[in-house]
Amino acid sequence: MNLANSPFLAACRGEKPERTPIWIMRQAGRYLPEYRKLREKVDFLTLTKTPELAAEATMQPIRRFGMDAAILFSDIMTPLEGMGIELEFAPGPIISRPIRRAEDVEKLHVADPEESIPFVMEAIRIVRREIPETPLIGFAGAPWTLFCYLVQGSGSKNFARARAFLMSEERAASSLLDILARTVASSLEAQARAGAQALMIFDSWAGLLDEGSYRRFCLPALSLLRSRLQKSGLPLIYFPYGGAHFLAAVAELGFDVVGLDWRSSLSRARAVLGPKPALQGNLDPAALFAPRKELIRRAKALLDEARDAGPHIFNLGHGIERDTEIAAVEALVETVHSYGTAGGHS
Amino acid sequence: MNLANSPFLAACRGEKPERTPIWIMRQAGRYLPEYRKLREKVDFLTLTKTPELAAEATMQPIRRFGMDAAILFSDIMTPLEGMGIELEFAPGPIISRPIRRAEDVEKLHVADPEESIPFVMEAIRIVRREIPETPLIGFAGAPWTLFCYLVQGSGSKNFARARAFLMSEERAASSLLDILARTVASSLEAQARAGAQALMIFDSWAGLLDEGSYRRFCLPALSLLRSRLQKSGLPLIYFPYGGAHFLAAVAELGFDVVGLDWRSSLSRARAVLGPKPALQGNLDPAALFAPRKELIRRAKALLDEARDAGPHIFNLGHGIERDTEIAAVEALVETVHSYGTAGGHS
Repeated sequence: MNLANSPFLAACRGEKPERTPIWIMRQAGRYLPEYRKLREKVDFLTLTKTPELAAEATMQPIRRFGMDAAILFSDIMTPLEGMGIELEFAPGPIISRPIRRAEDVEKLHVADPEESIPFVMEAIRIVRREIPETPLIGFAGAPWTLFCYLVQGSGSKNFARARAFLMSEERAASSLLDILARTVASSLEAQARAGAQALMIFDSWAGLLDEGSYRRFCLPALSLLRSRLQKSGLPLIYFPYGGAHFLAAVAELGFDVVGLDWRSSLSRARAVLGPKPALQGNLDPAALFAPRKELIRRAKALLDEARDAGPHIFNLGHGIERDTEIAAVEALVETVHSYGTAGGHS
Repeated sequence: MNLANSPFLAACRGEKPERTPIWIMRQAGRYLPEYRKLREKVDFLTLTKTPELAAEATMQPIRRFGMDAAILFSDIMTPLEGMGIELEFAPGPIISRPIRRAEDVEKLHVADPEESIPFVMEAIRIVRREIPETPLIGFAGAPWTLFCYLVQGSGSKNFARARAFLMSEERAASSLLDILARTVASSLEAQARAGAQALMIFDSWAGLLDEGSYRRFCLPALSLLRSRLQKSGLPLIYFPYGGAHFLAAVAELGFDVVGLDWRSSLSRARAVLGPKPALQGNLDPAALFAPRKELIRRAKALLDEARDAGPHIFNLGHGIERDTEIAAVEALVETVHSYGTAGGHS
């Protein structure tokens, strides 16, 4: 495999690759013994900020499983460092002064990634050198998802304060989303320049919004992102977790790849999204806890469903759970690689 | 107001009441100073198990706001006490031995509420005596939602272990859901006998399931519940939180009232659910943090939308947040009571 005939990049471009590519959200993480070993020596933040270590974490799942794409080991909060925000991890993100008023937004500025997070680009350059044959996905949090943390001040089940800010301070909210979109765009552009082959936007909290609010607040920020990033020439992947109820709005954005969680069926999503975007997903991560036979049955069923639903990148419908067994991941990758061929089950 | 002309009960029956009734999920709770005062003296479990105190908590929001229905102060885990499960709160529910194998299920049995939770029925009788003019909602957790806690062993963002159990132990999972459905049915029947006017089933984690799994596992348990409870003659309210993507399956269940979270629009839900069920909901609880003018604008917009969508019970789309201001709730109830008349905005 090399970049020119990468099944992952072919699928991203909307082509039907020889075999279905697979990678797994959060594939560099706690379920891997070699990752846990890395973490014995350094804390999470140090890991994200030390290029050699972040690159190492990025490459671990590629070496072990032969995934068809690597994704940079980093955190969605990282690009916010240069915005004028004080951020801690304990272990989730904590914003010491949450954004609650229009004045708070005025103090923020678009961050320059080359200045504030050069270690991210350095990690990318190391990965490119070390595993040049594997495409590398650069990534960022979506503006709304970052907004949730900045306004709520920490993780939350439902980020009610963030939704309230949309209602209370409509103009300031749009302005904050715009600053975030431009910060995210700059970060992704820098990741592209450093050598990434694809760019992914994680909208982990999109599912908390009704369609009206999603259209009103997220579409403008995401459109800005998309038009800025289109110039990079790299495929753009957008993952609106929990967004089954507003996929029609997502369709209007025109991303190259749309990630689906396990509650959106591939065929139904295809009907709403139209023929163009590749679909990425969406095996329930819980399937990795099922008996191997059942896991394989489900992976094959998904591949069968995908066969009639256009270009497909196999993935889980959410990040892998930290207590997943390695052998389950091996069985999954092996199944997708052997069963997910253009010839299929026939 | 009395029970015979209760707008809440009229809406439950599918009639168009003179004015739109309102109550609020988690209306007896931490945002109320008088509730926090109760809790200074006793912990949560003692409160649920002491009939006088549970009745007092139930009545607090009725006295303060004149809500159109009371809902029993209790916990969805309460009816599980008699099943052979060891349950603690710390502060969320903790199951000391989670259900992970078919053998674990075999040890469980349907609980008899008159034996295991007589304090619940006693609390209902007290509320009936004290505020006879206000309809009282008895409630329980849905089988799947209780299953989530029993299998996962504690609260969780996504209950992956519970979803995995559906895949690994299909038969044992169905059997556990059946035991839970019969336990819940017995509890709700006992609540009906004790004097409740309506029965509500909270399916807080339904939204974690894809439609196929929901149909396969939840529909049988919910159908059993519905046919058992229909004999009580009381209206049944079902609230599948996060269930916008499988409302078509919910339609088949034929509940009298379907609760909607803020992401399902009333008009779209009506189109899927058909003309019969009353719709309950679904103002975003975050709206109570917005400036009063915006809160009122949104409440009126929802009432306008509901006017063309058949019988409607005003509620939030999720439980009220604990740091909600009392004055916001007052403004909301006042708006619904004055604006939500049959005459409407004309």
